[in-house]
Parts: sequence; structure tokens; C-alpha cells
Amino acid sequence: MPTQGKLEAVCKTVLERITPKPDERKKIEGLAKTLERKVAEAAEYFGVKAAVRLEGSVAKDTWLSGEPDIDIFMRLSPTVPRTALGEVALKVARKATEGARQVERFAEHPYLEAFVDGVRVNIVPCYEAKRGEWLSATDRTPYHTDYVKARLTPQMRGEVRLLKKFMKGIGVYGAEIKVGGFSGYLCELLIIRYGSFLEVLRTFANLRQRMVVDTENHYEGRKDELPLLFNEPLVVVDPVDMGRNVASAVQRQKLYTFVAAARAFLENPSLKFFYPPETKPLTVGELKEALQKRGSTLVFIIFGRVEAVPDVLWGQLYRSQRSLAKLLETNDFVVLRHTVWSDEENLNAFIFELESHILPPVKRHLGPPLEKIEDCQKFLAKHSANPETVSGPYIEDDRWVVLIKRKQTDATTLLSEKLRDGGRSAGVAKEIAQALSRSFKIYKNAEIVEVYSRNSEFAKFLTEFLQGKPKWLEKA
Amino acid sequence: MPTQGKLEAVCKTVLERITPKPDERKKIEGLAKTLERKVAEAAEYFGVKAAVRLEGSVAKDTWLSGEPDIDIFMRLSPTVPRTALGEVALKVARKATEGARQVERFAEHPYLEAFVDGVRVNIVPCYEAKRGEWLSATDRTPYHTDYVKARLTPQMRGEVRLLKKFMKGIGVYGAEIKVGGFSGYLCELLIIRYGSFLEVLRTFANLRQRMVVDTENHYEGRKDELPLLFNEPLVVVDPVDMGRNVASAVQRQKLYTFVAAARAFLENPSLKFFYPPETKPLTVGELKEALQKRGSTLVFIIFGRVEAVPDVLWGQLYRSQRSLAKLLETNDFVVLRHTVWSDEENLNAFIFELESHILPPVKRHLGPPLEKIEDCQKFLAKHSANPETVSGPYIEDDRWVVLIKRKQTDATTLLSEKLRDGGRSAGVAKEIAQALSRSFKIYKNAEIVEVYSRNSEFAKFLTEFLQGKPKWLEKA
Repeated sequence: MPTQGKLEAVCKTVLERITPKPDERKKIEGLAKTLERKVAEAAEYFGVKAAVRLEGSVAKDTWLSGEPDIDIFMRLSPTVPRTALGEVALKVARKATEGARQVERFAEHPYLEAFVDGVRVNIVPCYEAKRGEWLSATDRTPYHTDYVKARLTPQMRGEVRLLKKFMKGIGVYGAEIKVGGFSGYLCELLIIRYGSFLEVLRTFANLRQRMVVDTENHYEGRKDELPLLFNEPLVVVDPVDMGRNVASAVQRQKLYTFVAAARAFLENPSLKFFYPPETKPLTVGELKEALQKRGSTLVFIIFGRVEAVPDVLWGQLYRSQRSLAKLLETNDFVVLRHTVWSDEENLNAFIFELESHILPPVKRHLGPPLEKIEDCQKFLAKHSANPETVSGPYIEDDRWVVLIKRKQTDATTLLSEKLRDGGRSAGVAKEIAQALSRSFKIYKNAEIVEVYSRNSEFAKFLTEFLQGKPKWLEKA
Repeated sequence: MPTQGKLEAVCKTVLERITPKPDERKKIEGLAKTLERKVAEAAEYFGVKAAVRLEGSVAKDTWLSGEPDIDIFMRLSPTVPRTALGEVALKVARKATEGARQVERFAEHPYLEAFVDGVRVNIVPCYEAKRGEWLSATDRTPYHTDYVKARLTPQMRGEVRLLKKFMKGIGVYGAEIKVGGFSGYLCELLIIRYGSFLEVLRTFANLRQRMVVDTENHYEGRKDELPLLFNEPLVVVDPVDMGRNVASAVQRQKLYTFVAAARAFLENPSLKFFYPPETKPLTVGELKEALQKRGSTLVFIIFGRVEAVPDVLWGQLYRSQRSLAKLLETNDFVVLRHTVWSDEENLNAFIFELESHILPPVKRHLGPPLEKIEDCQKFLAKHSANPETVSGPYIEDDRWVVLIKRKQTDATTLLSEKLRDGGRSAGVAKEIAQALSRSFKIYKNAEIVEVYSRNSEFAKFLTEFLQGKPKWLEKA
């Protein structure tokens, strides 16, 4: 067991690195002020009535040095129709950041991401809504900012920064669908509730069952209602909206990765958790050797551009991944692991690791129990003189059974056939199916070097996937 | 649907063949009389007080032409100790059948089987017991004989013969452990209850759930007690002993084979059910081709003499067969079917048909859920730096998981290693393990031709096993 001293020393080192220095702070705060003004002016220019305000981690002073995101919110009148909200906001935002690189983004409604002086700026619309009378998902944000600002001491801001950096380091930070992890606001609420980074870690390290955080005691005396309202394993009741679980986006795997990492860090603190070593991709030769020695089969489905914004893309990728894994499993392939990768531009990959991509040509097929007389008749009629029947029908215990030829014995053939038309019938999501129906390619084991050697990000991802082990699990 | 006429025509033909003609009847009844006398004389010679009487199918006139079994019972005084019962009986029986071929048999206690004038004769001891005060399992037999003789009309004796011959033809006749089927007494009780062969078939053809026959109404008004007393799917309360299920030896597979055959016969009556065509074994060339085309793997464990009487031998063979199938399954091999064969002398064979005898070298190994903190620590300590770990440990949902090297990838290696010392630890029964520890050989697929080509009974058995389909299922 490490001494408290060792833990504190690591935290101190990290905190020094991630707390913005006066120069950086001055630059970012100045830029935020300027942008606030520019957005207000642009709104006025278009005759749009809007309350413009800085939100997010810069407003709350919980941003990480070197990784600022400036969020400027425009609060519009509820008289603007929802369908027009995004359009109006985009027009204003484009004008306010004229000359900067601009990317249209989409969450619940469109918003603009711009890069100004090398800093990412999000200009987001919302409604001037009364507390509890939300018209769009972003309406709560100004209330969140106010709630957090009023409660965080300067000391606690450091603790938030540590928690965020830790979560980034172990890959569970971010509520976007791609990550399915912890949002910045969630980190702040956890610090408000538990007081410090280490206390949050200790709490999660001891997680043994469902965890409910209700800092504002919205459910005082009504705790029984919570399981009916929320079924996620981690529930953090939103202080500004008791009907909302701030942790609803946190996937189980991310929650438990955090739990495991918290335990490991408390046992053996190290900078590695905050600053994981960069992955050095295997050379092509090493990759080939690793795949050969491994003995499993990796099947890759590689395809190109999907017409969808990131949140939609990842939602559809994950859904399709699950459906394809299911397809393989219902056809008796043993799926060891599966994952998905995307550069969000021109290259997407589903990866399935199988015990084997070839199945034996014969399988057992259980018929009805003898007591179901009509089903038995149908079963015998179907299998008794069928050329696909290898043996039987025979009686085993109280059922008819046959050994029959297996229809699909090769996973790559199965996938090729099912995806030829996009794979909608196999549960592939719409936009993914469109991309697949244009073209895709299936690679098996070392055949992937073709893709691997021309895309270093993919190479890094695959190297990590093969290793499988979180970096913080390595002994120091 | 065939007309009643077609059914009756087939039954008539069979009945003519299986009813003993006057000459044969005279010979058998004369032989039985002689033997009764000889056994009585032998008992007297040794000073053993014994009531000697003919029992069984000859006594009840329900034996099949060409297949008589003469059962002579010696009822001894309850003062003879159980341990001496068999010894005394054997001594008497040997003397009574001096000069004939004699084989010592064993059911609950030893008895003698002798071949006199080409007829099998069983000389069996039992106690002179009062009804309900049974001292040994065979004490009921004289009561059974009396019960049946008093109730069977000459017409019904023919129906019993038909039922027995049908059951022999489809392989479900005989209560001995090897068969696990219907005894002669059980056939007689079914005819007494349902009146005719066809009515018995109709009753079983419609079997949809547990069936209880209680001809003597022992459980009148107490039917609720039956499920507590008997848990077999077929319960036939013994008229002379309400605590005994005459069908307790009937295995589910035999019961349901009878059900299925009854349905098939009523649909499409044919002599084939009573006289199945002899199996013509595949030639060695055909066998090799059939195994190759099949695509599965047949694994044979061949071994020699087991020191045990047939009932014990088969009991141990079946038990060992199940244990070895379980061994293969717990090691992830997919067992399609398994069976056992024995000539009851020098050659025994376990046969396992596997999807494949080779498994992929990697498998998924599920660890504990994250909430079990101590188990997680142990799991990580064990797998984190283990050379057997192929990938991970990683978190999937809420558990730790690893991909690890599979210990056993070849079924024949697994079996060889486990059986080297007889296989007791793998659940092989005692006498079988003794035989195995002396020597055994494992054959795979066509390697079996070595055994196949020198044993025609085994060849017949394997040919039928590969086909799998009951002969009566073939369309005429």
C-alpha cells in the first residue's frame, strides 16, 4: 500500500502541469470575451434577440492547460421555432467567426465549431427557458454553469482538473457517443459531492453495487422511487433537473474501467494514469508474427465514407457492430471480441476476433419432443429424406434429433453475402448500410497489412486491440 | 391412413409366424417338465428343501416360436441366508443340468443359465415369501405368473406375442441394463390393461405426457401420491406390489422409440417393424468414403476384456460413456453423439462423434464482475503477466475478461492422458478403469478399419450408428 504521500506527490505533479499559467489563462479569457462580443454583435446584425454568454469549462475555470474549449451560448427566445433554432444559430456563428476554419456539428440540433487562434470554439444555441421548462437539451447548460460556479472553491477546481485528466488518461472522459464516458459537468458534480479527486477515486474503487448520488437531496424520503426512474448502474441526479441522470450516457464498460483504474491507482499511483505512454505500432513483420502466434482469426470489414455527423456515425457503428456480432454468433461462430474503428472521414473498420473463421461441416439439430405429435410429423417429413441430413433422425431421450450439414461454414462468406446489399436485414444501421452497399472489403488476419501499413492511427488502434490490456495495468 | 384391414393383415401374418406350432410346443413343454423334475431331484439330493416350479413366458404361454426361454424357479425357505442363496441354487442347478453348457449369471444374486437341447434354461432361486414380504427381487415372480395366467385369454396371449415381437423388432424389448426396455411381464400387463396389441400402440402413439397404468386400482382415490412415489415418465404399478413400478427400468429413449414406432406403424403398417432387415455392413471402401464425406470426427476408444457379468458390464459402460462425454464437453469439444458397444467378451468400444477433434488454440475466459473486489485482485494477479494470456485482461461490460491459450486442443490427446491410469478421475467406472489401465487404443475416423474389418458385429453396429435412422423410418 502506498503512503498518502506518494499519492499526493503524483497529484501535485499532475496538477502543476494541467493548471493554466497566467499567460495562457489571460489569452483564453481574452479570446472568450472577444468571442462573446462578436457573437452578440453578429446576432444584432441579423436582428436576432439573443443573450450571449460564456459557458463550459472556461466559464467555470475547470479547463485543462493546453486543452481549452471555449463554449459560447446564445440564448434565444422561445418564439423561435425549434426547426429554425439551428439555422439561425449557424448563421450568427458563421458571421461571428468569419475567417476561421468552421465545421458544422450536430448534437440535438446543429451548432458551429470554429478554430480561432488555434483554439476550438463551440457556438451553441439554446432557449431562454425557465428551470424545469426545458425546450431543448442545451437549455440546462447556463443553469449548470451557475450551479457549479457557486459551489467550487479554487482548491476544488484543481480537484476537478485532476479528475478530468485522470479520466482522459484512462479513456473514459467524454459524454459523446463515441466515448460513452463521463462529461465535464459530471466530474464537477462528483468533486462537489465528495470534495476531492482522491475521495472520488476511493468511492468508486469500493463500488460494489448500483451507486446513486443525489447532492441536492431531490429524493429525500423518496429513495424508493429512484430505481423506478433510473436503471443505469451509476445515477447522478442533476441538481438543476431532478428528472435527469447526469451519468445516463456512461456505458458500463467505461464506468467499470474507471472503477478498476481507481483501484489500481490507489494501490500503485503513477503518472501513467494521466499520461499513458504513446502506443508504438507493431511493425508489419511483428504484426504478421503476432497474428500467426495468436491462433485466433481476425476478420476485418473495411469500408469508406459514411454520410453522418460523428454522434450519428458512432451510434450507427456501435449498433451495427452488435448486430454483426450477433449474426456471427447465431451462425455458431465463437466471437472472442469485437470492436469498431473510424477516422470519422474515409476509413471505417469493424473488427471481429473469432476462435476460428471456419466451422465444422456438420452440426446437431434438435427436433421437437415426442409429446408434440404434429411437430414431430413435420420434423420427420422435413429431415427424414433430406440430402442435408447426415445422420438420423434418431431419438435421444425424448426428442428427435438429426445431424445436418451446416449452411455457413466460413465467416467471411457469411459476412460477404449478408453485406452485399448493405446488410440492413442483418441489423446494419441505415447510413452504414449505404456506405457498405457502395463498397466494402473483408480481410482476414495478415491480409490487413494492406490497410495497416497506410494508416498509422489504425495501426496504433489495432496494436492496442491485440494487446488488449489497459496501459495502467502494466506494472511500473 | 391405412385401413384397419391393412393393420390386421400384417398382425395376422406375424401372429402365424410367432405362435408356437403343436410340435414345438410339445417339445418345449416336455423339456420344461423334465427340468422341473430334475431340479427337484437335485435339490432333494443335496437335502435342500425347495418348491420347484416353471415360471416365465413358457409357464404363461406367451413365448415366441423359435425363441423359448425356460425359467425354472426354486423357492427356498427364508431360513437360508441371503449370502448362501445363490451358492445353494447354483449347486442344485449345476447338478440338474449336468452335461449341458452352463454359464453363471448374476442379477440380484447368482443364477445358472444352461443350454439344454439347444434351449436356454434359467434356473433361478427365490424365497418362499408372502405377498408384500419380499426378501429378494425374484420372490415376486411366482405371483406375477399366477396373476397373468389367471387373466390372459388364449386370444390375449397372441396379443402379448405380437407386442413382444414388435418391441424386439424396434429394439426396446428387455429389462436388462444393456437394453433398458420393456420386460415380458410389462408387455403382459399392458395387454391385460388395454386388451390388444393395436390398442396398446394407439395408447402410446398418443402419449403426450406422463402415463400411469394402475390396473388393480391400488391408488384409487390416492392418485396424488403417485408423482411423489414414482418419477419415471411411464409408471405401471405392479398388481402384486403397489410400491413397485414395473416400468422403472424403461429408459426414456426406449419409451419414446416405442412411441415413435407405434405412430409410424399405425400410419404405415409393415412387417419391417417385426422383422427389421439385416444390416449389411459397409465395405471398408464405403466406410472410408462415408467418414470422409461426413466431415465430423469419430473417436473410438477400443479396449479388451472387462471382468464383470453383463448387467454390471453394461451399467459401467453406460456410466463411463456419460462421464467421458461430459469430460469432452467441459473441455469445449462439441459432442454430436456418443455410444458404446461390447461383445461382452474381448472387445469394447466407446464411440464419440465430435464436430471436430481439434479446437482453436485460443479461448475467452470470463473473469469476475468488478464489484467482487478481492476476486478481481486474484484474477489480475493470475492473468495479468501470465504467458498463457493472449490478450487482456480487459474490461467488457462489468467484468474482467482474458483471451487465453487453451490447454487441450486435441480430443484424442485429452482422452489418452485421462485414461492412461484407467480414467477413474474422469468418472470411468471401476471394472472399466481396470480394463483401460491394462491397455486401450484410440482410433480416429478411418483408422478404425483395423477393428472394423476383423469384427463383423462391430461393423454392423458402426454401419447402423453412422446411418442413425431407425429401419422402420424408411419409407416402404
